[in-house]
Amino acid sequence: MGRMKTYPDKAEALLAALRKLPSIGPRSAERILLFLLDQDRAPAQTLAVALEEALRHVGFCERCGFFSEGPLCTICQDAMRDRSLLCVVARRQDVLRLEQSGRFKGLYHVLGQRLSPLQGIGPQELPVGPLLARLQKERPAEVILALGSDAEGHTTALYLAPLIKKQGIRTSLLAVGLPAGTGLEYADSVTLGYAFSGRQEI
Amino acid sequence: MGRMKTYPDKAEALLAALRKLPSIGPRSAERILLFLLDQDRAPAQTLAVALEEALRHVGFCERCGFFSEGPLCTICQDAMRDRSLLCVVARRQDVLRLEQSGRFKGLYHVLGQRLSPLQGIGPQELPVGPLLARLQKERPAEVILALGSDAEGHTTALYLAPLIKKQGIRTSLLAVGLPAGTGLEYADSVTLGYAFSGRQEI
Repeated sequence: MGRMKTYPDKAEALLAALRKLPSIGPRSAERILLFLLDQDRAPAQTLAVALEEALRHVGFCERCGFFSEGPLCTICQDAMRDRSLLCVVARRQDVLRLEQSGRFKGLYHVLGQRLSPLQGIGPQELPVGPLLARLQKERPAEVILALGSDAEGHTTALYLAPLIKKQGIRTSLLAVGLPAGTGLEYADSVTLGYAFSGRQEI
Repeated sequence: MGRMKTYPDKAEALLAALRKLPSIGPRSAERILLFLLDQDRAPAQTLAVALEEALRHVGFCERCGFFSEGPLCTICQDAMRDRSLLCVVARRQDVLRLEQSGRFKGLYHVLGQRLSPLQGIGPQELPVGPLLARLQKERPAEVILALGSDAEGHTTALYLAPLIKKQGIRTSLLAVGLPAGTGLEYADSVTLGYAFSGRQEI
């Protein structure tokens, strides 16, 4: 009787861990397993070391919440950044997107959550306290809410804006409008509505 | 001036290692990175341990070439397997597929390569020596070539068959025909041709 209906235990354990990763289906997980446990173990060793090192050294900036290898991230440490501007984003990766646009030279604050009644995230779950405490301490001239132009982003911005303005800090939202470099045919009617109401004289 | 156009170095190193995995594109790699370096580090720790353990303990069976945590895999060690039948497959995962079908109770031999002129794999590159030495030693009654019904599989089988038969060992190929449980409309004409020539009286 053949007992071997699976890979060896340690290989199955690795397969199970791979299957839990986002955007990896069962077939991809097996393809990755076979790649990692192939004759040439160098790529797997590289991955193992990279994973250990990242887990050991990459934490979160205690001021803004972005990834950092020390207590403060390189942005918060950078003396050249404009400390009068604070951009509030929902997720860590949003910091990188905005940095890559090269258009913002202020500081960031990673909120970590957005209001989402559907996912059971109400005002109680929103980590507003640390943001308000930071504003009170750092007193930026303006807070830019960059929380996304979807329902969650708008709702969260509408909730936060009065709390920030109460501290006497100017509060703004990223513009919603036509994506750059496309014709009108690529914009939905809601976006077109925002593009109209946000139109600027030239 | 903002220097932060990337994640911290150790995070970028992990991202680079993830990008080298098969079936993972740049977007998936970033999604996995953010998942692994999220506040909850438990899934990443589990993956790190599973990877280390698999690399340390999972090797290859010195007889058949399948994955094994010891010198011999559980199939080769299993006294209940029919040692008169040897099934030659191209890749390790093929062993698992055949085991899962539950229809074969003999032993396996993982060839590791198939003839493929397009990929520069000629008879010199085919690891035939270990197979022929094993046959000479173990003297199975029959060798079943399960190398696939594509061009590489056929070419490899046609090359191996005379070498095996020269040792006085019966040699067979897996049947090519209609996939089970489908209508004729799902079989291409080449498959239909094989299904005709391999027809069996009922």
